[in-house]
Amino acid sequence: MQGTPELAVLRLGHRPGRDERTTTHVGLTARALGADRVVLADEAAGRRAAIDDITDRFGGPFEVGATHNPIEFLKQWEGAIVHLTMYGLPIRDVEGEIREAFDAGTPLLAVVGGGKVPFDVYDEADWNVAVTNQPHSEIASLAVFLDRLFEGEELDREWEDAGSVVVPKAVGKEVRDVE
Amino acid sequence: MQGTPELAVLRLGHRPGRDERTTTHVGLTARALGADRVVLADEAAGRRAAIDDITDRFGGPFEVGATHNPIEFLKQWEGAIVHLTMYGLPIRDVEGEIREAFDAGTPLLAVVGGGKVPFDVYDEADWNVAVTNQPHSEIASLAVFLDRLFEGEELDREWEDAGSVVVPKAVGKEVRDVE
Repeated sequence: MQGTPELAVLRLGHRPGRDERTTTHVGLTARALGADRVVLADEAAGRRAAIDDITDRFGGPFEVGATHNPIEFLKQWEGAIVHLTMYGLPIRDVEGEIREAFDAGTPLLAVVGGGKVPFDVYDEADWNVAVTNQPHSEIASLAVFLDRLFEGEELDREWEDAGSVVVPKAVGKEVRDVE
Repeated sequence: MQGTPELAVLRLGHRPGRDERTTTHVGLTARALGADRVVLADEAAGRRAAIDDITDRFGGPFEVGATHNPIEFLKQWEGAIVHLTMYGLPIRDVEGEIREAFDAGTPLLAVVGGGKVPFDVYDEADWNVAVTNQPHSEIASLAVFLDRLFEGEELDREWEDAGSVVVPKAVGKEVRDVE
């Protein structure tokens, strides 16, 4: 997000066919809630168009990247790594120190998985963080993590080069075309 | 959640085949983040087993219901209705009054859609609420809404009749069987 260190999201564990929609949701949630980019494994890279399409219409900056080796990508990340997992430490216990590192200028990589995540990921992570120790959704975990990290500031994120802007309404829909 | 008025989630717009995973994520997010039940349209009711399975293993109470007429269900809801939509009012502007109604004892129905949501829903809702006016994910919107409504208290939700409990860890996985 403008005015903060870099925040990237790495999406692991995409199962072709089964996870098309959830991977798109991960990407769009990352974009909407303050991340600068999402990095997909090669087998998920087919979702790039769906995410880029939203950025084209509603603005950016937001990048979609791909990697043929997510674990290697993670090992070479220059910054801190937050792995969102139901097995990790409660978010309320660690969000303060994560925010402190981020606010001090450390780029963050937020890693979310689908099914089984290799043990390397737990090991490489600076923080394994649980948004409840219950099984639910990597999309939900990412959303709560970003909203807490940015303390709601992401909800006022500014969008550049938007062709369309939604006008908030109590009832109904209004989308304005930007000249 | 124990100790609060009823909170139900109504999932609209399930497209068979395409939305199986996302509907499961909506249900599991509702459960993990403090809702008492999720109500699915009949065409989504096949996801019930996946959600019930998690409740059987990790505890409840959490119910999965189905309705053949979601709009009628919504019209007959005795309580207030929050419709999560990118076209609505910013969550930060309305979360205070929603929480006030809920804390005063009003049961809440949180409605999330997939694709196109009938206009009736906007009309019946007491609040049309946007977790950003950007397109992203009904799962992410639901997660942020619940986390804000409960102000994080949902993260300490207690689980009854759990067969398995995850023990939070800095690194690795630990699941304990409950006798």
